[in-house]
Amino acid sequence: MKLVECVPNFSEGRRKEVIDAIVGELNNYKVKVLNIHADADHNRTDVTFIGEPEEVKKAALAMALKAVELIDMNKHKGEHPRMGAMDVVPFIPVANVTMEECVELAHEFAKEFSEKTGVPCFMYEEAATREDRRNLADVRRGEYEGLKEEIGKNPDKTPDYGPNKMHPTAGATAVGAREFLIAFNVNLATNDIQIAKNIARAVRHSSGGYRYVKAMGFEIKERGIVQVSMNMTNYRKTPLFRVFETIKREAERYGTRVLSSEIVGMLPMEAMADIASFYLQLEGFDIQQVIEKRLLEELL
Amino acid sequence: MKLVECVPNFSEGRRKEVIDAIVGELNNYKVKVLNIHADADHNRTDVTFIGEPEEVKKAALAMALKAVELIDMNKHKGEHPRMGAMDVVPFIPVANVTMEECVELAHEFAKEFSEKTGVPCFMYEEAATREDRRNLADVRRGEYEGLKEEIGKNPDKTPDYGPNKMHPTAGATAVGAREFLIAFNVNLATNDIQIAKNIARAVRHSSGGYRYVKAMGFEIKERGIVQVSMNMTNYRKTPLFRVFETIKREAERYGTRVLSSEIVGMLPMEAMADIASFYLQLEGFDIQQVIEKRLLEELL
Repeated sequence: MKLVECVPNFSEGRRKEVIDAIVGELNNYKVKVLNIHADADHNRTDVTFIGEPEEVKKAALAMALKAVELIDMNKHKGEHPRMGAMDVVPFIPVANVTMEECVELAHEFAKEFSEKTGVPCFMYEEAATREDRRNLADVRRGEYEGLKEEIGKNPDKTPDYGPNKMHPTAGATAVGAREFLIAFNVNLATNDIQIAKNIARAVRHSSGGYRYVKAMGFEIKERGIVQVSMNMTNYRKTPLFRVFETIKREAERYGTRVLSSEIVGMLPMEAMADIASFYLQLEGFDIQQVIEKRLLEELL
Repeated sequence: MKLVECVPNFSEGRRKEVIDAIVGELNNYKVKVLNIHADADHNRTDVTFIGEPEEVKKAALAMALKAVELIDMNKHKGEHPRMGAMDVVPFIPVANVTMEECVELAHEFAKEFSEKTGVPCFMYEEAATREDRRNLADVRRGEYEGLKEEIGKNPDKTPDYGPNKMHPTAGATAVGAREFLIAFNVNLATNDIQIAKNIARAVRHSSGGYRYVKAMGFEIKERGIVQVSMNMTNYRKTPLFRVFETIKREAERYGTRVLSSEIVGMLPMEAMADIASFYLQLEGFDIQQVIEKRLLEELL
């Protein structure tokens, strides 16, 4: 059973009938919606759904066509950076799927979507075709208004698929493949913010730490403690347990301890099994030994 | 989503057409078969299936009726202790189900089964109505042949449901509710069998250890190591991580280390999540945060 997650973000977070029409497209496909988050300030909605690869691609395509039909970027305002009606479409491996398969799925999606609508597509992260498009923030720099000026003139802004110009109402779309992101916080038994900041610096990639960790130190005033707040951007290559053990050791060095940790939002079963396997020093463990995993295989 | 496992054992492990007919009854119900183990020496088959409580009960009942129809205990021979055509029917909570609900399910099953067939039923383990029937081995002592002599004469052998006499061909049935059993082995980096035996004695219930641990020390000659081999009979009340940590500490005391561990067969996702939660010191973790768990809820 192959399982892919897709988290399309579209540029409408206020008009309920438009949001319902776009999300409603998913009802025609064998995918399961895990979360819908409509944000009125951002004027943007992100939808999390899951299913088998081909079905997920078709469902995302149906949503994207509906978004192109119903959203006019010339009238769109919102706090969040955006460049199109269907703004971002990432494909994420969850179970029995490689990153390569998700990259291929992203390219197929972008090709079909741009052919059907004339919306130019830019490939990002693992699906990027050039290094300067790996980072979504770089792809989206200048937003809808800026890209409209540059596309067709600046060769660095030539899309990967579709015409070398903006769609008159739907703008452009970023299509990518990325690893599942786990939000992981570790609380420390101290109110010294400097310790949290030092530890965040020790574990995060940007300052010399683990390759797939983004980290910040925060105060949690109401509890009188501090927290190392992290985004784990690739739990396969930088597993949670390894970072947790590093934080435990670093906390000791400052004479304090880990108080607790938190997983915010969702995580794949594999990430959880990896943690148990590490600490129990399991040999020969197969995730198929988990009853619910087995049951899911039978049902899908 | 409530999930119950049932592992009926019936007294036929040789005649394929009989086994197929009995197991085939499950196809008429919304349950998922996880394992079928037919043993010719034991002349016995055990089937593991899973589903929602009411459906599991109905499916088990259909199997039991077919076993009564096709198996004649007067002609049955096999190495494994047994007392009836449908020999043992345990109900096991897997997810979102309490032990009390499984006990109730077991009693409903026994009542309906004995009313329909005249097969006397003895309730065991958590479903037992008297302390001397808690242990399945005690209930089954004397087996089919012995019980046939005693039932109706010895008041300690009065069944919980059904007539106070054996069914002429199907004998009697033990019906119970129990916790999920996890087979958990810990390998030690030594070939000294005495260390494995000492540690097994330290952790097992019968000699002063944890309430829900059965343990033995073994040699694994081909690897030149020893193993503490365990049955964890209630992973909720005696969790794997606690026993593992105790073994780690005890191994140190003998100047050796834990080499690895193994989970043999299946385990519920909750048992895995408990291990990760303990080691990461997770706070506020909910198993619904696991994508596959959430997906399963949607599908069932």
